[in-house]
Amino acid sequence: MEFELQAQDSASSARAGKMTTAHGEIETPIFMPVGTVGSVKAVTHEQLIKEVKAEIILGNTYHLYLRPGTEVLKAAGGLHKFAGWPRPILTDSGGYQVFSLAANRKIKEEGVVFQSHIDGSRHLFTPENVVDTQRAIGADIIMAFDECPPYPSEYTYAKNSMELTHRWLARCVKHMSDTEPLYGYDQALFPIVQGSTYRDLRKISAEFIASMGADGNAIGGLSVGEPEEMMYELCALTCEYLPQDKPRYLMGVGTPWNILENISLGVDMFDCVMPTRNGRNGMLFTSKGVVNIRNKKWATDFSVIDDGIDCYTSNYYSKGYLRHLFIAGEILAMQIASIHNLAFYLHLVKQAREHIIAGDFTSWKNEMIPLLKTRL
Amino acid sequence: MEFELQAQDSASSARAGKMTTAHGEIETPIFMPVGTVGSVKAVTHEQLIKEVKAEIILGNTYHLYLRPGTEVLKAAGGLHKFAGWPRPILTDSGGYQVFSLAANRKIKEEGVVFQSHIDGSRHLFTPENVVDTQRAIGADIIMAFDECPPYPSEYTYAKNSMELTHRWLARCVKHMSDTEPLYGYDQALFPIVQGSTYRDLRKISAEFIASMGADGNAIGGLSVGEPEEMMYELCALTCEYLPQDKPRYLMGVGTPWNILENISLGVDMFDCVMPTRNGRNGMLFTSKGVVNIRNKKWATDFSVIDDGIDCYTSNYYSKGYLRHLFIAGEILAMQIASIHNLAFYLHLVKQAREHIIAGDFTSWKNEMIPLLKTRL
Ligand SMILES: [Zn+2]
Ligand SMILES: [Zn+2]
Repeated sequence: MEFELQAQDSASSARAGKMTTAHGEIETPIFMPVGTVGSVKAVTHEQLIKEVKAEIILGNTYHLYLRPGTEVLKAAGGLHKFAGWPRPILTDSGGYQVFSLAANRKIKEEGVVFQSHIDGSRHLFTPENVVDTQRAIGADIIMAFDECPPYPSEYTYAKNSMELTHRWLARCVKHMSDTEPLYGYDQALFPIVQGSTYRDLRKISAEFIASMGADGNAIGGLSVGEPEEMMYELCALTCEYLPQDKPRYLMGVGTPWNILENISLGVDMFDCVMPTRNGRNGMLFTSKGVVNIRNKKWATDFSVIDDGIDCYTSNYYSKGYLRHLFIAGEILAMQIASIHNLAFYLHLVKQAREHIIAGDFTSWKNEMIPLLKTRL
Repeated sequence: MEFELQAQDSASSARAGKMTTAHGEIETPIFMPVGTVGSVKAVTHEQLIKEVKAEIILGNTYHLYLRPGTEVLKAAGGLHKFAGWPRPILTDSGGYQVFSLAANRKIKEEGVVFQSHIDGSRHLFTPENVVDTQRAIGADIIMAFDECPPYPSEYTYAKNSMELTHRWLARCVKHMSDTEPLYGYDQALFPIVQGSTYRDLRKISAEFIASMGADGNAIGGLSVGEPEEMMYELCALTCEYLPQDKPRYLMGVGTPWNILENISLGVDMFDCVMPTRNGRNGMLFTSKGVVNIRNKKWATDFSVIDDGIDCYTSNYYSKGYLRHLFIAGEILAMQIASIHNLAFYLHLVKQAREHIIAGDFTSWKNEMIPLLKTRL
């Protein structure tokens, strides 16, 4: 995987870059729609490409390991072929889902024992087998196995957890070099900075992660319930210690304004279920602000969802019709809202990129944030 | 509304024709996807046009009256504008839903009193106000208000019900001529033949309906639980008495083989929730037979859903991937299956039309039916 730094904002740490993977290029900053079990919920692949303009999607190792399972994925020749998704894929390590979804989990030095949230069956995830699963998935970018401590965490817990994550990382790195990609193209491993909300731990972790010389680096354990200002402070601190010449991926973030603020701190890659999950509940992020489309006020508003972005769906259906679909419980409501929200997120990071290149990112961002937060 | 009879099969009563409405032409025989509350479940308008190739969709007066309601529809300028659907729309009269969905319904000479299945609120449907609602919806084809008796029905019940439907029809016809379309284009009224499973009642009803000289005629009260052979026999009998030079619409039918058989009896128009409802449950109708896509046997079948029809979705996603999406409970599963099944239904009626025009419909139909019924 290649990363080329193309522009840097003079008034902030924002950067524009280009990643090159076996499945195509990604212009950064980028937002990655979440395709949990190999499908971005309620959105077709064609809509992802033509309307959302997704350049890379995320898959969840935990979910894909349980269903369809690695045997099916191997038989298909990997997730790209199985799902028919031609563009890059990043997979998380499964760590986060093991801690948030699975039952009766037990963390040991070897790895994590847990029960499937689907059928209660027992499984063990180790740094090694999580790499193997991601080899079977065939992701372009593989995440190292980590523990994501909850917020808040005691200092001792956070420190021990971070150190375990670091030891697991060493095992992931070794297992990556001991194994080969299964489908003939390279896979990059991104390590993950942890350290909870402790500045000294974050610094230690970021320096350790930086020392690995990976193709890209991730910041984990943020956006887990801590105040926004704390997230920004810790993200800024972490970015300081991560290499300039490699992409930085802030995991699981966030609102449109979270994304712009973190871009200004030096983050290049984002993922979050918010645009799809909130979309399915009727919350729209638009170029004019936030819309709760279930609100009665939209019933006879026949203006289009968002004429401020270049997306067929956002410019086709009206707010009144979309509200009606939500009130009537129609599946099409979730489809339209998910497409729109994702298209808006991709539009926003593309705008950010253009302003970084044009040299006026910071003033643009400061204008945009109050607008994005407006409740319409 | 115009109807031109273009070809007739020599070995059966099958016909090919062309309907012309204010929102475009419809080539018959045609299948109309059901868009209950103004949306064909899980399918976008763009997919309906480009992939399914729907020429006309159906809306349900009962559902649209309750949500979004006639005031919103009038404010939007009708359902076409409200939903952004450019092609023809047919609305049922609400009678069927009142009898199958609503609570505490009471049938009187005046009309039907019922409680909404949504909030229990009380409403009255009369032949007159059902026409008014369909005026507000702006459907190209309006259905007369009828009572659809259950199967089986006693002779006396069926006879009284049919006579009530006929009296209601006279009131619908009068109210149509007493009122004007709201949006500047013509709306056609189709009366409905009833008579349950009694041949003499069906004949009386069909003759009465034929005497109205309507733009098209519908056959109701079939496919409500009676044996298939009985449906065919009653449909054949009814078609005999309905005008040759007007389209015939068999309501609520059915499987792909039901549709071919009824085309051979002289039916021109069909609607059914089966392709979408069964699709959402993982049952696919394909050019090679019926597929239960949840079956384990499809897990590693990476062939496309159906290469026998001209639909992007059917030729893009694999059976194994679609099965995985169903097993994982992904919304995309319902989207893909609904698009495919509808595209298959539209493909089938188009093939039927081509064979009618080519003069070999009956032999083609007899070959197709066992194939369509094959369980794969
Ligand atoms: Zn998130
Ligand atoms: Zn049906």
